[in-house]
Amino acid sequence: MSERALRAQKLDAEDELAGVRDRFVLDEVVYLDGNSLGALPAHVPGRVEDVVRRQWGELRIRSWDESGWWTAPERIGDRIAPLVGAAAGQIVVGDSTSVNVFKALVGAVRLTGEGRDEILVDATTFPTDGYIAESAARLTGCTLRPLAPAEVPAALGARTAAVLLNHVDYRTGRLHDLPSLTAAVRAAGAVSVWDLCHSAGALPVGLDEHGVDLAVGCTYKYLNGGPGSPAYLYVRRELQDGFDSPLPGWNSHAEPFGMRSGYEAAPGALRGRVGTPDILSMLALEAALEVWDGVPVTAVRAKSLALTDFFLECVEAYAPADRVRCVTPVAHEERGSQIALRCADAGDVMKRLIERGVVGDFRHPDVLRFGFTPLYVGFADAERAARVLGEVLGS
Amino acid sequence: MSERALRAQKLDAEDELAGVRDRFVLDEVVYLDGNSLGALPAHVPGRVEDVVRRQWGELRIRSWDESGWWTAPERIGDRIAPLVGAAAGQIVVGDSTSVNVFKALVGAVRLTGEGRDEILVDATTFPTDGYIAESAARLTGCTLRPLAPAEVPAALGARTAAVLLNHVDYRTGRLHDLPSLTAAVRAAGAVSVWDLCHSAGALPVGLDEHGVDLAVGCTYKYLNGGPGSPAYLYVRRELQDGFDSPLPGWNSHAEPFGMRSGYEAAPGALRGRVGTPDILSMLALEAALEVWDGVPVTAVRAKSLALTDFFLECVEAYAPADRVRCVTPVAHEERGSQIALRCADAGDVMKRLIERGVVGDFRHPDVLRFGFTPLYVGFADAERAARVLGEVLGS
Repeated sequence: MSERALRAQKLDAEDELAGVRDRFVLDEVVYLDGNSLGALPAHVPGRVEDVVRRQWGELRIRSWDESGWWTAPERIGDRIAPLVGAAAGQIVVGDSTSVNVFKALVGAVRLTGEGRDEILVDATTFPTDGYIAESAARLTGCTLRPLAPAEVPAALGARTAAVLLNHVDYRTGRLHDLPSLTAAVRAAGAVSVWDLCHSAGALPVGLDEHGVDLAVGCTYKYLNGGPGSPAYLYVRRELQDGFDSPLPGWNSHAEPFGMRSGYEAAPGALRGRVGTPDILSMLALEAALEVWDGVPVTAVRAKSLALTDFFLECVEAYAPADRVRCVTPVAHEERGSQIALRCADAGDVMKRLIERGVVGDFRHPDVLRFGFTPLYVGFADAERAARVLGEVLGS
Repeated sequence: MSERALRAQKLDAEDELAGVRDRFVLDEVVYLDGNSLGALPAHVPGRVEDVVRRQWGELRIRSWDESGWWTAPERIGDRIAPLVGAAAGQIVVGDSTSVNVFKALVGAVRLTGEGRDEILVDATTFPTDGYIAESAARLTGCTLRPLAPAEVPAALGARTAAVLLNHVDYRTGRLHDLPSLTAAVRAAGAVSVWDLCHSAGALPVGLDEHGVDLAVGCTYKYLNGGPGSPAYLYVRRELQDGFDSPLPGWNSHAEPFGMRSGYEAAPGALRGRVGTPDILSMLALEAALEVWDGVPVTAVRAKSLALTDFFLECVEAYAPADRVRCVTPVAHEERGSQIALRCADAGDVMKRLIERGVVGDFRHPDVLRFGFTPLYVGFADAERAARVLGEVLGS
């Protein structure tokens, strides 16, 4: 066994989160794609079965009250809240990330004053955010201006209505400076909208602490909610009374069962709701969130950085230097929980890695992406992944 | 046994759909709330378990290809298509009904020419349609005009952009004349949008035959997809190239994995997709749709009318005449698949019915609503429900 493999064993033995892995269904594969689809928590199948057989099958319509279906969006929002540094009553779960970006951006523009007609958006964002931002701009009479996050402070001005940024870049794994960018947006009188898809559950976000205005995120990556599990919307408490959703469905009405023809928005985070929530996906997510019991996000972050440091060290040792180049920042304060390696034949390399039991993913056109989920990925996994990568690249 | 109870037995014995009931999980309750939440098809729990344990738990990310997750929205759309009289390639499943109403209405306005700036909406619609229509009008610079469906033909004009109508009124159970209203909307140069929530799976809709432009519907009522299962959007083939969604998420991109910064809409019905589909709810729906194998919608309609006729006859015979008044049209061509009875103390009466094993629902302020799902409700159920109603009202 190599020096690094031995060190990995030691690091795993000392890992305070090592036991959390048992809360998941895993096999011999090194699964480094939890930033795309989180692994299955072991207790989720039983809970889903209860939702289907008993709650739907036996109680049927009564479950809207008796099984707590109706209040699931805000209840699960409150369960996610501590993971992203939010007090209760500010998050609702439901709809896809794209739909929530739309609610947030149109809502953001409506929260700002007259004369503010420009939306700034991260030019390297996950594409859907850019497409939806373009639609929100078009429908609200705004101009959309794509730019690098670092250019945001200089671009802010009296015309800026809203700024949509990713906390962690989906491709490079770069962590953007949420506290200072949020402060700059606020100082300019604009509204900040953060996309937390690649940070929630991987590192501390601190929504309340840093005064973020609006945020959205998915739940199927580091939150392990299952394929296509519903996304969430955070609306800072002080902004809730003024939040004017472009999707005012009956679930966000002050009196949803009053069946009134006139719309009156519910108080608080509830006004982020739209239509009937998809209960099966939502309650699978609720169950999945229990793996976080007793797990501090700070510990997850510490392990994530240690894992990615170690993986980088192993890649440097094992992989031919001219074959891959790391595009994820080395500085901890600029790194999310993934390592992205540029590689000319990345698509082919990832296929071969997967055949050999190391699952990451390929991002067009030339990126190998390895996500590190500290809840169930260990140091021996990191060492093995780098070793197999080295073998594939060297062969 | 009364004459009517005996007749119910005979009708059940002659019912060609009687055997379909065995495809569902049911008990001694008379479940007349399938127009709110359809009963659980018996094979769905096993299928959901496979999706959770094997597809998510074992195959994980590979299931997007290998388990057909990625193509589920259009595949399930094609499974729904024959139930609403649509050829394949025009329906996608995903998001809530409210979100789909939004896509459809904004898309409808964009399909019409310059100078058309008025949206007509059914004033007695399920509230969410009206709220969303108001939002769509606001964002597209249109005026919203609520009116009774019968007033639509006279209200159509050169300013009319879109018309949103319910096929069946959720409260009264009135079936609106889709063929003639659609023809009138088209003749006026406007775009028709139909909400099929209370008709799909209960009666023939004939979307293609009648030239409907756009339609939306939920899947958890007569389609038995489960609580909050995803809704669907129909875009008539001829309009697809011009359909310009206000929610252009990455799933509707021509090349979703190209991760391009510029949006280019996919061809066909796919452009109704938005974000990542909620797979658990979606595949539960797909399984649920199998109960329709070999079941013609025309047979469902015939039984629905026979059931509601018989129920009305029993109510007339058993219930004190001054206590309830039927608000559902007696004429078959104006009746959906429910019976709504006006009753001063409807809320209290429904509670007592439920205590006695007859589950319908109460619609504020004074409506008792009984939904008849011909796939699993029989004539003896109808007789028993009317009998218990008579006892409750007479006591």
